[in-house]
Parts: sequence; C-alpha cells; structure tokens
Amino acid sequence: MSSLRIRDGSRQLAIVAAQARHTAGVVVDTSESAHVRLHPVPVEAVSIDDPFWSPRLRRNREATLPTQLRLLRETGRLDNLRRVAGTFDGPFQGRYFNDTDVYKWLEAASWTLAAHPDTELERDIDDVIEIVAEAQRPDGYLDSYFELERADERWTDANLHEMYCAGHLFQAAVAHFRATGKHSLLDVAVRFADHIDATFGPPELGKRIGTDGHPEVEMGLIELARTTDDSRYIALTKFLVDVRGHGHLGIAYDRYSREYHQDHQPFREMNEIVGHAVRSVYLNAGVADLYAETGESALLDALHRLWANMTARKMYVTGGVGSRWFGEAFGPDYELPNALAYTETCAAIGSIMWNWRMFLIEGGAQYTDLIERTLYNAVLPGVSLDGETYFYQNPLSDEGGHRRQPWFTTACCPPNVARLLASLPGYVYSLQDDEIWVNLYAEGAATIHLADGRTVALRQSTRYPWEGEIAIEIGGEGEFTMRLRIPEWCESGAALTVNGAAVGVPAAAGTYAIVRRTWQTGDIVRLSLPMPVRRLSCHPRVTENANHVALMRGPLVYCLEQVDHPRADIHDIALQDETTFRTDWAPDLLGGVVTLTAEAVTDPAGGAWHNRLYQSIQTISGEQSQQSTQIRAIPYYAWANRDPGPMRVWIGRRV
Amino acid sequence: MSSLRIRDGSRQLAIVAAQARHTAGVVVDTSESAHVRLHPVPVEAVSIDDPFWSPRLRRNREATLPTQLRLLRETGRLDNLRRVAGTFDGPFQGRYFNDTDVYKWLEAASWTLAAHPDTELERDIDDVIEIVAEAQRPDGYLDSYFELERADERWTDANLHEMYCAGHLFQAAVAHFRATGKHSLLDVAVRFADHIDATFGPPELGKRIGTDGHPEVEMGLIELARTTDDSRYIALTKFLVDVRGHGHLGIAYDRYSREYHQDHQPFREMNEIVGHAVRSVYLNAGVADLYAETGESALLDALHRLWANMTARKMYVTGGVGSRWFGEAFGPDYELPNALAYTETCAAIGSIMWNWRMFLIEGGAQYTDLIERTLYNAVLPGVSLDGETYFYQNPLSDEGGHRRQPWFTTACCPPNVARLLASLPGYVYSLQDDEIWVNLYAEGAATIHLADGRTVALRQSTRYPWEGEIAIEIGGEGEFTMRLRIPEWCESGAALTVNGAAVGVPAAAGTYAIVRRTWQTGDIVRLSLPMPVRRLSCHPRVTENANHVALMRGPLVYCLEQVDHPRADIHDIALQDETTFRTDWAPDLLGGVVTLTAEAVTDPAGGAWHNRLYQSIQTISGEQSQQSTQIRAIPYYAWANRDPGPMRVWIGRRV
Repeated sequence: MSSLRIRDGSRQLAIVAAQARHTAGVVVDTSESAHVRLHPVPVEAVSIDDPFWSPRLRRNREATLPTQLRLLRETGRLDNLRRVAGTFDGPFQGRYFNDTDVYKWLEAASWTLAAHPDTELERDIDDVIEIVAEAQRPDGYLDSYFELERADERWTDANLHEMYCAGHLFQAAVAHFRATGKHSLLDVAVRFADHIDATFGPPELGKRIGTDGHPEVEMGLIELARTTDDSRYIALTKFLVDVRGHGHLGIAYDRYSREYHQDHQPFREMNEIVGHAVRSVYLNAGVADLYAETGESALLDALHRLWANMTARKMYVTGGVGSRWFGEAFGPDYELPNALAYTETCAAIGSIMWNWRMFLIEGGAQYTDLIERTLYNAVLPGVSLDGETYFYQNPLSDEGGHRRQPWFTTACCPPNVARLLASLPGYVYSLQDDEIWVNLYAEGAATIHLADGRTVALRQSTRYPWEGEIAIEIGGEGEFTMRLRIPEWCESGAALTVNGAAVGVPAAAGTYAIVRRTWQTGDIVRLSLPMPVRRLSCHPRVTENANHVALMRGPLVYCLEQVDHPRADIHDIALQDETTFRTDWAPDLLGGVVTLTAEAVTDPAGGAWHNRLYQSIQTISGEQSQQSTQIRAIPYYAWANRDPGPMRVWIGRRV
Repeated sequence: MSSLRIRDGSRQLAIVAAQARHTAGVVVDTSESAHVRLHPVPVEAVSIDDPFWSPRLRRNREATLPTQLRLLRETGRLDNLRRVAGTFDGPFQGRYFNDTDVYKWLEAASWTLAAHPDTELERDIDDVIEIVAEAQRPDGYLDSYFELERADERWTDANLHEMYCAGHLFQAAVAHFRATGKHSLLDVAVRFADHIDATFGPPELGKRIGTDGHPEVEMGLIELARTTDDSRYIALTKFLVDVRGHGHLGIAYDRYSREYHQDHQPFREMNEIVGHAVRSVYLNAGVADLYAETGESALLDALHRLWANMTARKMYVTGGVGSRWFGEAFGPDYELPNALAYTETCAAIGSIMWNWRMFLIEGGAQYTDLIERTLYNAVLPGVSLDGETYFYQNPLSDEGGHRRQPWFTTACCPPNVARLLASLPGYVYSLQDDEIWVNLYAEGAATIHLADGRTVALRQSTRYPWEGEIAIEIGGEGEFTMRLRIPEWCESGAALTVNGAAVGVPAAAGTYAIVRRTWQTGDIVRLSLPMPVRRLSCHPRVTENANHVALMRGPLVYCLEQVDHPRADIHDIALQDETTFRTDWAPDLLGGVVTLTAEAVTDPAGGAWHNRLYQSIQTISGEQSQQSTQIRAIPYYAWANRDPGPMRVWIGRRV
C-alpha cells in the first residue's frame, strides 16, 4: 500500500536499488562509508546464548515489546496518529514528541524481527506502520502534534521536536527495511525526508535556514542516505549541523539555552561538552555518521575534543553522563554529584551510539571499553531485573526513594532501552577486511563474512561478566586475524593462547590483542582476563568523592545496599586500603550475581556530631567509636530490586 | 477614597480602634499576644549609623526602592492591576503572582517611611495604593490575574497563589498602616480578608475546604488580626493550617508534590522539613504567629522538630536553606551540595522571619544566632555591593558563571530583600517587661519604652562585624535588665564589663548574658567578643564537605575567590590544621572588609590525574607535587563583585 504513495519514479528506483543491497540487521551500516575503519556484523549473524544476556533479550522480546505496544495504544500515542487520518475522534494526547515512542518501538521490534522471525510481531509492526503511513500528509510532512488544529504551526518553533520525531522515524524505517526487506515504512521516511530537504537548506536555493533544538535527525538522515544511496540526505545533514552556533535556532535567547540546544557555537569550534545530555550525545553520534561519509577532519577533531572532555571530566564511574537535573544537562567540569546525579538512561544509550560510531571510524578500544562500561553500569540499571520498570534518572547514591516506574509521561527511556537491547548482538563483533574484532564477551555463536567472501563461524564460551575466561572456537580455514579487546579494567595479567600455546606479545589493557595466523576449524583462542576487585578513587576535583572509593570487578561497578547491612548504616562504612575481598557466586540473589564481601569499619556519625552540622575543628573530639563490620557489595545494575533502602556506590576510605 | 469602600459600619469601627493603638514600625506586633515572651521595638525607635549597614540601608531607600518602582511600572506589574480597573488596555503581563511584587514594594516602602519621612516616597506609595484599591472587586476579591477573561477561574487551582498574593497584600497593608496611620491599604486588605473568610472555612458554615499551595497568607492574616483586633482572622488562619495534610489541596497528586506544598501530613505531625523551601519556612513563620495567639502546644512542638531537623541536617554553613534546584526544595537530610546549592535568597529571608517569631515566643539565643548567621551570609550575598543586582540562587562554590541580575521574571527576591533591609532596625532590640534584649550589634542609637513606661536611650558603638568590641552607653535611670547575646561563634573569651568592672558570671556562647542593676545615665556596658579565625568542619554525612574546612571570623563566613589567587587554582588549595591566619582591614576592597591571609599548600590536580577521572588506588603515584602558596579569603557575602572567576567556601584540609 505505501509503495503506491511514491509518486516519483526515480525515487522508486532508488528504493529498489537499496532493496538489492538489503543489509539485514545492521544498525549503523558503514559497509559503503568511505571514512571508516570498521564494518558492522548484522544482528542476526550473532546469537547470544548465555545466562546473563539471554534472559534479558528474551524478556525484551517477550515482555517488553508487547507491554510497550499496549502502552502505545492505551496512552493515545497511536490514537494521535489516527486522529490525523480521521480514524480517531478525540484530542491530541500527551507530549508533542509522543510519535517518537511509536517509532522507537518500531525500531526495537524490527531489530528483534531480524534475528527472531515472528509472524505475530511482524503483523503488529505492519499494523502500526499502516497507522503511521496514514498520518502522513500529501506533502510528506508527518507529525501528529502539528496536524489539524495546529497545522499552521509547523516549523515555527525549533524546540518542538519535529525533526527529532523525523529522525526516529528514519531510524525505525531503516531498521524495518533492513530487517524485513519491506519498504512500507521506508517510503514514508523518504517522503518526509524529501519534505524536510525541500524546506530547509541554503536560502539561495529558496529554502529556510533552520535545524532542530533536539538533535537526532542527523543519525536518521545518514542512515537513510546509506540505505537509499541518496547523497542529498548527507548534504542536508551537513546543512543542519552547519546551521548550529549562528543564532538561527530562535529559541537560543541566552548562553544557557544556546548550550542546552547545542547552538552556542559552530560544531567545529566546540571544545567542551555542554547542554542537554541526550541532545549532545545524539548530535555527536550524528556528526560521527556525517564524518564517516564526508571525511571532514574538522568534524572528527571536534568529536575528539568533546569525547576527551566528557570522559576525563564529566562522566560517572558507571559511564553515565549528564549529571545535572536542571536542564537534564552536562554540568561544568568535575560536577558529578552522586545522590543528585541525573544520568538519564537515554543519555547512556546515546553515549553508546556515539561511541559505536567513533569505534567504527577509528577502531580504538577506548570506545568499546566505554560501551562496555556504559552498557553494564549505566544502561542496565535503567531496567528492573524483571524488565518491566525503568529508571529515567540513575543516581549513584540514594536513600531508598528512587524507584523504577513502568512508564513515563516523557517515555523516551523505555523504548530506547528496548531498541538497544534488540540490537545488542550487532555490537559484539566488527570487521575490517579479513580482521575480526571481538568487542564484547558473551557466550554464543556468530557467522562472519570476511571482505574476501570467506565465512568464519565463531563459538564464544564464557561466564562473563562473572568470570574473565573466554574461549572462542574457530570454524573456518586459512589466514585471517582475530583481534580481542583487552579491557581497560584488566590492568595486568591478561593472557592469550591458541590451542593452549601462548600467542602474541602481551597486549596492554585498553587495546585489542592481535592474533594473525592460518586457522584450522576447531582452533580455540583462549583469553584470560583476571578480575581482581579494584578500588577506584576519583579525581580530586570531584569534591564529593574525596576520600571515597568505588568498587569494580571486571566490567561491573558495585554498590552497597542497606538491605545487606542490618548492623551498620551504609553511609557510615569505610574501607581500609589493606582490606581484601572475597567473591561469591550467589545464584539465587538478584538473578544470580557475584557478591564482594570484606571487613570494613563503621564510624557511626553520632557521638561528637550529635545534632551538630558544623563544628570548629578545635572542638571535635579525637575519639571516634570505630567498629568492625562486614560488607557485601552487589553489582550496581541490580540495585533497587529489593526492599527500598539506602544505596551508595562511593564508599568511605580509611587511609 | 478607599475608606468609602467600607460598607460595614462595625468594620469601620474596628479600623478606628486599631488606629488608636497604631504601633508604628513594628513588623511582628506581639505586644498583645498572649503566648510570647518578647515584644518588638519599632523600626523607627532604632537608628543604625555605622559604616557597614548605613550605606546598605541608604541604598535600599535611595536606589533600590525607586528602581524597583520603575521596574514595577515597566514590567507591567502595575498595568496588570490597572487593566482590572479599566485604566489600562492590554494583556496581562508576566507571571500569575506578579501582584506580590507590588505588595512587597509597598511593604518595603512603608517600613522605610516609618523611620525616614519622605513626602515623595509617600506620594508614590499613595499612588500605588490607589491602583491596588481600584483593582479590588466589589466582593472584596483582589488578584489581577484572575480578573476579566479569567474571572471564572478564581479559587479553582490552589497552586495559583491567590492567597499567597493576599498574604503579601495583608503584610503591606499592615506595614503601611503602622508606618503612616493611614488605612487606605488596610481597608483593601480587610475587605479581601473578609472575602477569603466568607469563602473558606468549615463546610457546616457553608464554606469551602481549601488553603493555598504557597503559604504566606498565614503571617498576613495574623498580623491583620493583631492590627484590627479581629479574632476571625486567627480562626481563619487555624483553619487554613488545619486543612493541610488531608489531601484537600487537589494539586497534591503524589508524595513529592504533597511535600512540595506542605500537604503531605497534618502540620502537628511533621517531623522533617521538606518541600519547597520558601513555602516551608513561610508556613512555619505563620504557624509560629498562630501559636503566639493561641498557645497550642502541638504547634510549637512541631515547630521545634522542624527547626531541629533544618538546623542539624539541612542548612548550609551560611544559614542558607533549600539545597535542591529541583523544586527549589529542601533535600533529604545532609544533602547540601555546594556548587549545586539552590539556597534561594527568599528562603533565607523566610528563615529569618520564622526565627524571629520563634525568638519572640521563647527568647532563645539559638534563634537570634541563626538570624545573624543568615543575615550576613545568606541574605547579604543575595545583593550586589552596589545594591542593584540580585542572586536568586546562592551557591557555595562556583566557576564564575553565576552572576547577579537586576530583576527576574519571578522577581520574588529583590523586593523581599528590600522589605527585610527596610525593617532591619526592628530586629536589633527586643523587650520583656523591664528587660532590654540586645540581639544584633551595629553602631547606632535606640529609644526603648519599658513596660512600666520608663524610657531608656541606648547608644551602641562598635565596629561589628569586623571587631567584637561593643560599647553600649545607657541613657536612663533605675533598675532594669540588659541582656546581651553572646554569639554561638564566640566559643571562648567573651567578657562583659559595666563602667570597666567585670560583671556577671561569664555567659556561655549561644546565650544572653544578663546584667540587672540600678543604672545611671552615662553607664557604659562593654562586651568583648574575641574573633579568632575558626575552621569549621562539617558532619561526615555531608559527603561533599568531607576533609574540607570553612572559615568563619565573627559572624562572617569567608570564601576564596580566584581573582585573589593568581598563582594557584583555588580548587587545588588545602589548609593545614596548624596554619595561622593574619587578619587585615582592607578599606578599599569590596567596600571595606577584613581579609584573612594564611600559608596553604596547593596540590595541582595534574600529574597523576592528567586526563584521568578514575584510577585504581593501587596505581596512583604516592608522590604529589605539593607547593606552598598564600591564600586571601574574603567574606562570602562580597563574592561575585569583581571579575568573574571560581569561588569556594569549603577549602581542602590537609590533616
């Protein structure tokens, strides 16, 4: 039906051409990009089958997608689209960007379909796409908020997310096309993209100057360009990026709001990551996509500066970003409060999207290290263990009041988590000619097509993230390279063997170990990543973490929950540097976790401080009532899944 | 003219009776209150004439009041009232509570007039009152936002501040009446109060259950009751307090918003100070007023619990309160971030209002100590040294971006500062029978009428807050008592003499020293309050202040500004416990301040931390590049009056 909507013959041809190189479940398709090092491995080429991820991915398919579809229906998000088509009679419901939740669901459902054919899900997808398609106007415009009574307000306020909605539509359309080969949604996306392209652009071409207050369309447009092989969308993306920083947004009336919308300076001049965190990381991801196509070094230079600023000054130990509640924003350097951390789940997901594109461009382990850190410690905490409730904010310390919710008025996070998890298998490996890069460790299998046409089957066995032993069995013959990430957390002792014999020079933490050889089917690469409990301290400028440590083991950040500490207030607990830890596999705790147990001291805050908030240092008694106590730390991602109570990541350090 | 509006003969008589006991510039008139210990001394009975306060009070009269009146005109705040009367044709401008800025200006101008007769100011006041009076509806209702096109929306949303506006009207009306003897505004207030009384009350009397989402009317009503001797307003206040905590506000749909509006539990059951900080302290001040009239111990008990919670767990070292940006609210216990402190100037002013009422009830030095701390360190920083710009938020650490503004869309703070400063002389002394309590130290004179009719003249000489020597010359004969506050900051060495001879037992810090004797005119009481530099540490639960100290000298909290430290980054500076300080009077710096100079160490955060945010404690080099550097601290109230740059109150401590 939707193909009938395409009135432009040449466009139809482009779609058909795209269909010919249908790239299946590839989220970011750099296979034809001129300025990248790495190409992706499709979602459906990788199966994850392990006790850690499999239940999560299954819940995402079996519980999250149906639940979210029900919520899209019940909260009027589908009705908003129907009312444009005249098949629903009622007011617009909810927020002006509510279409995006429909699109993100479509994207999540499509990646799911790529690896798990499911006729019922496919029918649901088709039904939703039909609703979307019917809501598109004859001129290609599509935004249910700006229709009917608000049709005259189109493109009047850059902060009302019209292109943001479009970007999610484009990503969903590409996902659906790649996963199914159908172009029902892609047709809709192309028509809207053409409408935007006809509307925004250089004034000398009779177009308007403008861009969106909420970046996102950039990623969508580039992926649409990759799918339809239409370079106009790349030019449009460049235009939308170039517009920023020149005061054209209209909404940018002061420095704060200019930064909030990434309109405070031209992108190529940016040195510091500022403003609304999700907007910022989405923009950076889109610009990375633009660089991948254009190779303009000024863009990559700016991305490097922003990445360095974020990771060295504005990132939680969890990988979470965007510390400020006010404006859901990056704060100034080193402003990383724990209880007051905003750390939106979507910002973590956006950071992974950005880092993935940087990695595809350059192949640096710093990006996949950060993806791993963020995935386990900033995205996973955003979802309850039963997969049914979500955090929008992810504090690193709490008194027990912050609990996950099934949905939000601004429901960006739940379907964002769903689309990331649905596409997760696509992050495990990547490919450079005849080099297979192993980015993430998870038990399962993969089939990888080298650039020269050879096929390699891999079988990864591991108890990651609980143990650091990884075995990869090779199915394939001949010379090619395996690259395996030595995580930055593995500071020493990483060892690599092939068929039991040590290979290669020991690779440093935070690099990829390289094994190039002539392989035989049945060869086994073994990587051993020792996982001692690490105590991290934090840069002294982060005032709140002075004299505190955070515990990590392997890729996981740990925390204390009060429920495990009946005899001490966790806020009073301090660890001595010489403390040793015992690790225990607790199969029945929190879905199965490794806990960390140690002797600590507790220094109840009463005594000298009873009812006092401030005292002269001269008047404080030197005596403190120090007692010994045992702590049990759990992975931070699993917090707030038991009885409410205090939690903290940073623990007092007794030097 | 306005008296013509009074149609109720008995009401007119009440006003006349009130006029007979016209109590001049008394902000909180407890002179007839049954349940208080202390009575106030009117504003006009006290002159402050010293180099610290006089310029500030003069600027308040000569610059702030005219400027704010101009802004009331230019921002449409007077036009909003005029459009109700039909003398302005245009839309309502600004926020729905903008009437309050007019009322707070009237209150500030009235207290100013009490002590400084000024025909021009009086004419301005009369003009503004005429505009207000003309905007009142025949039924007594008065709120320019809920007129004309919104007249049907009166009292439909408890969060739209109708009673909040009324409360500020009542306070202004009382101030104007007391200062001038005119009842033009009082008539308006009484008519609106009667309207509210006829509207809200027990359903069995045919009235509505309800109260306001923003407390303030309580203080206004009680003061109106005191002025008109009409106990109905006390009963109405009790009703409005009793309504809280039972879900009647409508706006309180979850725990957070119930706390935000102080509707989460009945007032008498409250143990923890929560919610929007200004609303909370205003409510507590109003309830203290209610207690002063009714003596209901359950109210005072709750006030004690809230005060203890605030001062022991939720207050900055400056006295500032309301740490959370989100909701402008009290956070949980010990959540006192420095750079992210909200600490609204209005919340500090509200805290002073509450503490002043607690003090009048009980006479405890803890309240006047806190008034002093808050006045110098949480209210004064809210105003620039030139009196022309204001802080809404008062962080205790900043990178230089937070600067004062001349006005705000929500402009509560500027006229709130103006009314506090205009009434400040009324806080210096108070009276209990024949006991004169000296609460604040400032050079100047006072004339005090003891309860038995005797008049005592006082002449206070001091260089406070820079020096702790205070001489009070007595003009008066006979036996009476002088009580002098020994501030809690004066931990040892306070000495008191009369005519050179030591008197009394040494009083403890945080109490009032008592001198009862038969006085002769010319007797001189000398109080010596040693002012060593004190280094305060903070309760260990305030994570951000761990291993930091704040400097205080006398009543003043100090800070470091980057502009005074060209050779070190102030965030890298640490003080050793054995450090000694030099104090210097710097007459040309910041209007004249005492600076604190000391040797400190600086530990540049580079080196081991270069480009790193987190490191294993095992991998950090033990060597640190410690250097010696000199620091110069200035009073916190004077920060952000020079070139923008970093500032911090809490300084690293090298134990």
